Amino acid sequence: MYVIQNSELPRAALPGIEHVTLAGSENGLKNLSIWEQSIAPGGATPPHRHDCEEVVLIRTGSGELHVEGKVHRFGANTTLVVPRNVPHQIINSGNCPLELVGVFAVSPVPVFFPDGQPIELPWAS
Amino acid sequence: MYVIQNSELPRAALPGIEHVTLAGSENGLKNLSIWEQSIAPGGATPPHRHDCEEVVLIRTGSGELHVEGKVHRFGANTTLVVPRNVPHQIINSGNCPLELVGVFAVSPVPVFFPDGQPIELPWAS
Repeated sequence: MYVIQNSELPRAALPGIEHVTLAGSENGLKNLSIWEQSIAPGGATPPHRHDCEEVVLIRTGSGELHVEGKVHRFGANTTLVVPRNVPHQIINSGNCPLELVGVFAVSPVPVFFPDGQPIELPWAS
Repeated sequence: MYVIQNSELPRAALPGIEHVTLAGSENGLKNLSIWEQSIAPGGATPPHRHDCEEVVLIRTGSGELHVEGKVHRFGANTTLVVPRNVPHQIINSGNCPLELVGVFAVSPVPVFFPDGQPIELPWAS
């Protein structure tokens, strides 16, 4: 399967977050997983970390990246770089959906709370 | 640097291809490189391969993925999965710009012609 129709992919959700895995382990990938998410106004990821590098492409909306005790504000058409194992949180601080693509350097993607406790996700990655 | 303003990034080009590296080795990444490209109507990448997995997010336009002797047509809102070291070519077969994001599982990204000859690129990856 070289071409995936995004509209046909399964959708999942966490409170305030709509999710689609665009590509990942179910496509035979071992070193890439791509997530498309929409975070509602006021919504946020939990504080978490991954045992891999992450890049987030911000499509629309605005928000805050909380990392290492600091707040980094961002708008549309920006790119967030999150090094491996650095705890972080993404918050939609705006009034419209925060639409993003999360790119991870491993598949499936391990997700942990900052204290190391694994987070079980309701989607395949 | 956690937040990158895409509009401030350097732009590069090959014939028929406009390119911006959104994130890569210059951001300290070793396992991810993200390229944003616009391929003009009639434009194409050369046939090439990478020594890493690749995923291509098709934003607008339509085209063809040529891989393993077959043609896979695609439109907007699709995702292309290209396994490691599989020669491939992306062609804009439509009438409007083909806008895409290329995601690679290593940084910098090695690019080769199918026969193994390295391709030198006019951008950092």
